[in-house]
Amino acid sequence: MNFLGKLTRVQRKNNSLLCIGLDSDISKLPAALGGFADPQYEFNRRIIEATADIVCAYKLNIAFYESAQGWQTVQRTLSCIPPEIVTIGDGKRGDIPSTAEHQAKLLFQSWNFSAATVNPYMGQDSVEPFIRESQRCAFVLAVTSNKGSKDFQRLIVKGKPLYEHVVKNAAKWNKKRNIGLVVGATNPRELKRVRSLASGMPILIPGIGAQKGDLEATVRFGCDERGEMAVINVGRSIIYASQGDDFALKAREAALKFRESINIYRLKYYRLK
Amino acid sequence: MNFLGKLTRVQRKNNSLLCIGLDSDISKLPAALGGFADPQYEFNRRIIEATADIVCAYKLNIAFYESAQGWQTVQRTLSCIPPEIVTIGDGKRGDIPSTAEHQAKLLFQSWNFSAATVNPYMGQDSVEPFIRESQRCAFVLAVTSNKGSKDFQRLIVKGKPLYEHVVKNAAKWNKKRNIGLVVGATNPRELKRVRSLASGMPILIPGIGAQKGDLEATVRFGCDERGEMAVINVGRSIIYASQGDDFALKAREAALKFRESINIYRLKYYRLK
Repeated sequence: MNFLGKLTRVQRKNNSLLCIGLDSDISKLPAALGGFADPQYEFNRRIIEATADIVCAYKLNIAFYESAQGWQTVQRTLSCIPPEIVTIGDGKRGDIPSTAEHQAKLLFQSWNFSAATVNPYMGQDSVEPFIRESQRCAFVLAVTSNKGSKDFQRLIVKGKPLYEHVVKNAAKWNKKRNIGLVVGATNPRELKRVRSLASGMPILIPGIGAQKGDLEATVRFGCDERGEMAVINVGRSIIYASQGDDFALKAREAALKFRESINIYRLKYYRLK
Repeated sequence: MNFLGKLTRVQRKNNSLLCIGLDSDISKLPAALGGFADPQYEFNRRIIEATADIVCAYKLNIAFYESAQGWQTVQRTLSCIPPEIVTIGDGKRGDIPSTAEHQAKLLFQSWNFSAATVNPYMGQDSVEPFIRESQRCAFVLAVTSNKGSKDFQRLIVKGKPLYEHVVKNAAKWNKKRNIGLVVGATNPRELKRVRSLASGMPILIPGIGAQKGDLEATVRFGCDERGEMAVINVGRSIIYASQGDDFALKAREAALKFRESINIYRLKYYRLK
């Protein structure tokens, strides 16, 4: 099945646009996990078991797994995610083609992620190794959720902000319908604009929760016309909902609330199937 | 010692602007190394022992070390590089601040690289964690050596190509004098322009050798007024100079030729100290 089919199927099955960001910082895990050989994996496993029926995706922030045993932790974590769920390797990769090949091979073959985040600055040939197979998706950075997004992404080129050129190029490269975009929830105006330019493309939207993005605007402007194709990432507000032994249960409760809020806004703005 | 001092000292001591790119692809190593537990490390160690007196830097392409044992391979490789030599962790990193912190910590603390390559698309706060200490350098991508460099880097913003805005911003952020730039050797005109805007900043120049960049133009336009501050990376043409048991010797011979060619051009264009 191609990537868009997989995403649509799991969004409908679990009635959820929620993606949980497994930014599992080893220094912030509940004390109860201290005795495990791989506490990051144990943490992820319990979060996944508690939430796999209410999300459409998990996103692993690769920077949190770059340690002596991190490579295996990613592999083990992915092995407990049900295969119908989308998995996103978030490393903002992209490089000259011979290097990008290696990056894509790691993410898609060694680890078997269904999608990766890619930085567009180096252009088409730096993205190409990530979009060779229609069942794998490259989410290209358009407008990021941080303050620095203003430094270059909004510079005006031929009357339009740079990120619009990124979106238009990404749409042009999208022959296999397996390119998505990243737009931070902290930028609702830009999200609306990107959605208007990227009909049918999935948009990964980080910045809800700890980064204080606007959830209603995210749903209103991020979805396609059927109230789908937005992948709304929430990390810290879910995975660190509790520091106690009940962290997985509290993560589920927090995830249920986010899914419910998202679905209320979907009902408000879209005619759902 | 700050980064610029370290770079100047080793460039003078070894009379060399040459950086060897340890893009050690496990599938391309000499057959003779097949019996070692960590053939990548063994390969790197022998290349380093054969060349450490004739280079100013080694650059490790992180994508080639993202495997189950890659984390240790990087650590072991760095441990055999003499401490006066600059080491560059080339991963094109940069992310929202909380993630970039992790990336910088890995590269500078866990691994102890003296420099890292950083992608500017996400702006100042995505670079900031890499420039906190004056002895560590962030090489910010300006104009890359690949074909895709034309897609966004040369778009015109206020009458100037985007990469010039990157260079000017990088120069503005450079309070601790520890920011460098990356300009591909395949772009001599842009290199000349960047050097004119980035007085005193080191420029990392990939693209010589397999990528067919112009070495004479690289030296002529990449150095500062004293014929220094260019870090000229050569990877495949040196490390794969031979596939036989003599690979380290042949790598040394190739590296000596590159150093010599560089120094001939330095004599031609600069008044050396």
